[in-house]
Amino acid sequence: MSTTIKYEEKELKIVGTRPIRQDGVDKVTGRARYGADYDLPGQLIGKVLRSPHAHARIRSIDTSAAESLPGVKAVVTRDDFPDMPVEYAAAGEIVVNFFDVTRNVMAREKALYDGHAVAAVAATSESIAKQALKLIKVDYEILPHVIDVIEAMKPDAPLLHEHQYTQYVTPKPDRPSNIARRLEFKHGDIAAGFRQAEVVVEREFNTKPVHQGYIEPQACLASCSEDGQVDLWTSTQGHFVFRSQCAKLLQMEVSKIRVMPTEIGGGFGGKNTVYGEPVAIALSRKAHRPVKLVMTRDEVFRATGPTSGANVKVKMGCTKDGRITAAQAVLNYQAGAFAGSSVLPASISAFTRYALDNVHVVGNDVTVNRPKVAAYRAPGAPIGVFGVESVIDEMAKKVGIDPIEFRLRNAAREGTQTYYGLKLGPIGFMQTLEAAREHPNYRVPLGPNQGRGVATGFWSNAGHETSCALNINEDGTVALVLGTIDVAGGSRTAMAMMVAEELGIGVDKVRASHSDTTELGFNFVTAGSRGTFAGGMACVIAAREAIEKLKARVAKIREVPIETVEWKDGQARPAKGSAHQFAPMSLAEIAKVAGKTGGTIAGHAEINAQGAGPGFATQVVDVEVDRETGLVKVLRYTIAQDVGKAIHPAYVEGQFQGGVVQGIGWALNEEYVYGADGRLQNPGFLDYRMPVASDVPFIDTIIVEVPNPNHPYGVRGCGEVSIIAPMAAIANAIESAIGVRLCEQPMSPPRVLKAIDAAAGSKA
Amino acid sequence: MSTTIKYEEKELKIVGTRPIRQDGVDKVTGRARYGADYDLPGQLIGKVLRSPHAHARIRSIDTSAAESLPGVKAVVTRDDFPDMPVEYAAAGEIVVNFFDVTRNVMAREKALYDGHAVAAVAATSESIAKQALKLIKVDYEILPHVIDVIEAMKPDAPLLHEHQYTQYVTPKPDRPSNIARRLEFKHGDIAAGFRQAEVVVEREFNTKPVHQGYIEPQACLASCSEDGQVDLWTSTQGHFVFRSQCAKLLQMEVSKIRVMPTEIGGGFGGKNTVYGEPVAIALSRKAHRPVKLVMTRDEVFRATGPTSGANVKVKMGCTKDGRITAAQAVLNYQAGAFAGSSVLPASISAFTRYALDNVHVVGNDVTVNRPKVAAYRAPGAPIGVFGVESVIDEMAKKVGIDPIEFRLRNAAREGTQTYYGLKLGPIGFMQTLEAAREHPNYRVPLGPNQGRGVATGFWSNAGHETSCALNINEDGTVALVLGTIDVAGGSRTAMAMMVAEELGIGVDKVRASHSDTTELGFNFVTAGSRGTFAGGMACVIAAREAIEKLKARVAKIREVPIETVEWKDGQARPAKGSAHQFAPMSLAEIAKVAGKTGGTIAGHAEINAQGAGPGFATQVVDVEVDRETGLVKVLRYTIAQDVGKAIHPAYVEGQFQGGVVQGIGWALNEEYVYGADGRLQNPGFLDYRMPVASDVPFIDTIIVEVPNPNHPYGVRGCGEVSIIAPMAAIANAIESAIGVRLCEQPMSPPRVLKAIDAAAGSKA
Repeated sequence: MSTTIKYEEKELKIVGTRPIRQDGVDKVTGRARYGADYDLPGQLIGKVLRSPHAHARIRSIDTSAAESLPGVKAVVTRDDFPDMPVEYAAAGEIVVNFFDVTRNVMAREKALYDGHAVAAVAATSESIAKQALKLIKVDYEILPHVIDVIEAMKPDAPLLHEHQYTQYVTPKPDRPSNIARRLEFKHGDIAAGFRQAEVVVEREFNTKPVHQGYIEPQACLASCSEDGQVDLWTSTQGHFVFRSQCAKLLQMEVSKIRVMPTEIGGGFGGKNTVYGEPVAIALSRKAHRPVKLVMTRDEVFRATGPTSGANVKVKMGCTKDGRITAAQAVLNYQAGAFAGSSVLPASISAFTRYALDNVHVVGNDVTVNRPKVAAYRAPGAPIGVFGVESVIDEMAKKVGIDPIEFRLRNAAREGTQTYYGLKLGPIGFMQTLEAAREHPNYRVPLGPNQGRGVATGFWSNAGHETSCALNINEDGTVALVLGTIDVAGGSRTAMAMMVAEELGIGVDKVRASHSDTTELGFNFVTAGSRGTFAGGMACVIAAREAIEKLKARVAKIREVPIETVEWKDGQARPAKGSAHQFAPMSLAEIAKVAGKTGGTIAGHAEINAQGAGPGFATQVVDVEVDRETGLVKVLRYTIAQDVGKAIHPAYVEGQFQGGVVQGIGWALNEEYVYGADGRLQNPGFLDYRMPVASDVPFIDTIIVEVPNPNHPYGVRGCGEVSIIAPMAAIANAIESAIGVRLCEQPMSPPRVLKAIDAAAGSKA
Repeated sequence: MSTTIKYEEKELKIVGTRPIRQDGVDKVTGRARYGADYDLPGQLIGKVLRSPHAHARIRSIDTSAAESLPGVKAVVTRDDFPDMPVEYAAAGEIVVNFFDVTRNVMAREKALYDGHAVAAVAATSESIAKQALKLIKVDYEILPHVIDVIEAMKPDAPLLHEHQYTQYVTPKPDRPSNIARRLEFKHGDIAAGFRQAEVVVEREFNTKPVHQGYIEPQACLASCSEDGQVDLWTSTQGHFVFRSQCAKLLQMEVSKIRVMPTEIGGGFGGKNTVYGEPVAIALSRKAHRPVKLVMTRDEVFRATGPTSGANVKVKMGCTKDGRITAAQAVLNYQAGAFAGSSVLPASISAFTRYALDNVHVVGNDVTVNRPKVAAYRAPGAPIGVFGVESVIDEMAKKVGIDPIEFRLRNAAREGTQTYYGLKLGPIGFMQTLEAAREHPNYRVPLGPNQGRGVATGFWSNAGHETSCALNINEDGTVALVLGTIDVAGGSRTAMAMMVAEELGIGVDKVRASHSDTTELGFNFVTAGSRGTFAGGMACVIAAREAIEKLKARVAKIREVPIETVEWKDGQARPAKGSAHQFAPMSLAEIAKVAGKTGGTIAGHAEINAQGAGPGFATQVVDVEVDRETGLVKVLRYTIAQDVGKAIHPAYVEGQFQGGVVQGIGWALNEEYVYGADGRLQNPGFLDYRMPVASDVPFIDTIIVEVPNPNHPYGVRGCGEVSIIAPMAAIANAIESAIGVRLCEQPMSPPRVLKAIDAAAGSKA
């Protein structure tokens, strides 16, 4: 089965409209069931004991007192999880290393960060479970810790993993290091590029980890039967991947685990991997009762993946007429306690917006005593781009060219060769730049202490394994079952729209829902902006399969050759010019007799979708800086992004706005604050400041549609690009407003004030 | 797609063995979730107000006081259900008449039986709901009622339905009648047949309604959202059929209802149709909260379908050498309050075991003021066969021929033309007779007051719409999803066995489960012994589709033509004699790389299975009659039945034994007892006596396997035949024991005593 369907321009009736959201009402009324909304008779409450130390050897764990507490039904520690071999990825590949995953799920030799799971209990009530945690005695040998990425890279830094030697460097290092991997991309002649440059800008940037900030904490409910069958309800971006991970971690057969995805209250990359799920299963297996495990917000912050904090060095050169001649970056990314930061995609996305002859990128993936990072919307990209787009802004200002014009002069287009070996197909980057420049917001006059900033973003988007099924009901309505989770973006309705478009029926006739893991073939997590691209391709394949069956059925009923039947406007009818005339049959008419004429009609798809189309965005922001307090107020915001095709424009606009809002939070306020003891000091929404409604203006959206040739409707994907540019755009706007360049994130009032003072000092 | 796969003899590794039951442990531990085991946050408790009158016009219903009771969130009556047009079936067809169904779900113009639903409430607690029922004022005009089938057929009987004219009689009757339908089957020349007869026996039989007696009362949970989306959990034999029925009754689109089948604690035909489901949905729709509706046992007896009580007249003639020359029967079946008894299948099964030249069968479907009957295992057949096999026994005794020998002389075989137009294919009836005769039980010497009885049964078995999907997991295990409910007979494991056999892997690698209604195409109810026949055919089709994909994938990976790849023993390997040699790949090896080589591999089937093979059984029972008390003790029991092929012999034996036990209960003790007021007097297991373990001996089973040519493994179906013969076999055994023929069911101690007394009186 082909896993790419080419784009074909056609008249559209449903795709591109804005029908009502199928999962909307239940979410508004509170009827929708999230991870914590599931219960089973006789269930226990699970609680996890977490390390208070950033780095400590675990000498022993004594659970006997906890086990004796009445109401405690099971206690698990590292002894309940089998060890796993180390799995190394080839350069450029991403492999889940279960040696690490099992250690992150439950600390083994060492606790590696404040919040690291050390033991877990299941008890008949939450209060008993909490009491039991206090009775578990862990004998820690406290070790020196390191949380700063530059500190961690030093040869004499406290070492997290004795077995970890930096990968992809030759010769193989002779001693272990916190640098887990060193990536390098070379293109052209970087030295020659700098020699050609008339202007060179070099800057160093530092960012803090920020959390995905999903409103719903991780929550799951596991029931393990005496014969080893597991039912698992969980809030996840990918129930098939969670099934795989649990099966691997607990050494079970995949078929023995059935995962029911719940509604998900946000994920943004943070719910791509398991935390409590294998723990809940292990507890249930021991207790012979269902176990519910719901994280507190404190646990979410301390133990689930934030994105990397990083140190980024960027050096670029250009000619006076604004042609970039050299682009160099070093990206040092915190991985948290286990290798696997997003430095690879960050390295790729750093410069991929420009047609560059000379590029050099180095990426370091560095373990530190912090929670293992997880993906966060365009993983890693915003950090590197913060640096690159800040430097470009500075170059444009130095050569006196409008920032959009400067970018247009260097913009990548179809045929551009990237520095990592990819030749770009048709893309819409220049169109986003032009659209942003044309928008009225780009010409609004600015007042004192106000400034305008421009920045751009790129994401490659993704395909991967995807499946779906559609079943035509006896009244001609359609049940569409999706295997790729709708991470609250509205993809269910978007999929229903594509199916309705194909079948030629109203979108209200197609009801989309999720399957559990038994009912469809494997689906990758909803990540990489793959949902509507890959899911949509599967839906179109399934719909077209159903149409072929509908045509065949009508050919049988009307006794005509199938070649003479065409499907149009929801009907099987005589093909144009066919000698065989017959009364057309609508989908509802066929459905009514389907049972008696051979069985109901269905379509299926199990694919590995290929041909994802890269997405680009240009963002323009106006800010006003309060020189007294350092407060940066966002006045207006414009985003133009190429999505290939907006199936449901309102959802696309929502993705644009959501990404921008998260980017604003990242830029201005969010950060993990650690004490000298290596403990997280702000694990809650009171002290970790995410943007609220009053922090953000209305965000103007411009949808650019340059069709992806490798999708039947031209879809590229739209979820991630929007978060990439805000940090840089806001830094550039601040610089325009007050002439001070911020290279530290977040650009919170104290940091802005400090930068103003430093600038004043240097001028004085 | 072909919906018949021909039988092919082959060496079997899994089919025919007895692996462990996949749903067994959860049922033993109590983890399995039945209808009443589901709860939703904020759910209300629904309760139904039922008519205390057997027949009454409903002048008005005042729900205002109930609605005002604090805690009551919704009240529904007939006004909440749209009326439906009358739908008549053609002769020989079975059509669900929604005009009746909506009236059975909620009484409209009249209450037609004691227990008929008249209103329902949803409240925050059960006690409030019960209180609310008492506050509903129903103004009844009590009408004369009729519960006896013969009384109801009289022209001056109280009439249930003014619009009901007897169907299928010409000329069309000029006045309405309680006889809803009159069926007639004529074959040969019945008068000539009786003229040829040297012995004629004519008898009249009467039976009482008996209940299916499932341990789990009907239970459901409905949640209707503000935008009209319904989630429904229910204990059902067919979730797709329940979805259809609810959609029709509430005039909703099918796609708006998602039905999740729960484990089912017995159905036996009684859970083929909705009762509380549309009521719960209507309540939830009104209350905007989930509503749980669980019947009490009293409600189950009063308001859900028992089988028909009946009056049966049988007249047969034979020659002295035991050749049946004429067979005549009149079957008068109670339909309950609405037309639709099982008199049609009863008419067909009455004589279909014998090759007969002259047959005349009349069947009347008669409405009476009793709960509407429902299907019960081989619907209707045991009643008619009670009469026919009793008369045959009497004939055999009169001509002095062994009862098995007598039946062998008349037995139907391949090619026999039935009296309703069907020519029988290969069948195993004679083999069951011979097997029973050969069994040691047939030669055990009998003591005083002990007797041996023989009787036989036939069921046509069925196919119908069926679907399934199988998904090959990444570790080579298989998730098999079934749309046809496992009504606790073990069909899940049987299906897994057929899939494992096809794929060439262990049955422990295949995990079977049920889908909800969104995930597969329409499935008919599990009824007519269709589960393993039709479901198995779907599974084989899906497995073979998957095998084709597996072969194609290996051809692609190994770069060989697909024709050179064969599937054997769980491997794709070079076809015998092929020039293309390559390393074989096991299913697990292919599964591991499936994602990266084109997507996961699945198989699907949506079929209308054709070619069900008729099933036959011969049963032999020994009883001892206590002449003082009238108690009949069953000493030993033997059943030989042709199932075509026993996929899992233990489940087949279980079906044999279960059917026999239910037949013993029916024969000896079970009955609905009504008062003169038309009210049911024994709606509970204390007064309605079902057999318990001490009532039944070990039941010896003989599996006969004459393959059904229209099933890949030769399956016929096995669930129903076993219940058909016990009533007749026991009556025949009693006659052998004490020389008294019982023609009234149940043959309970008082009736047996009465018959003994009557016989003594007539002799005196």
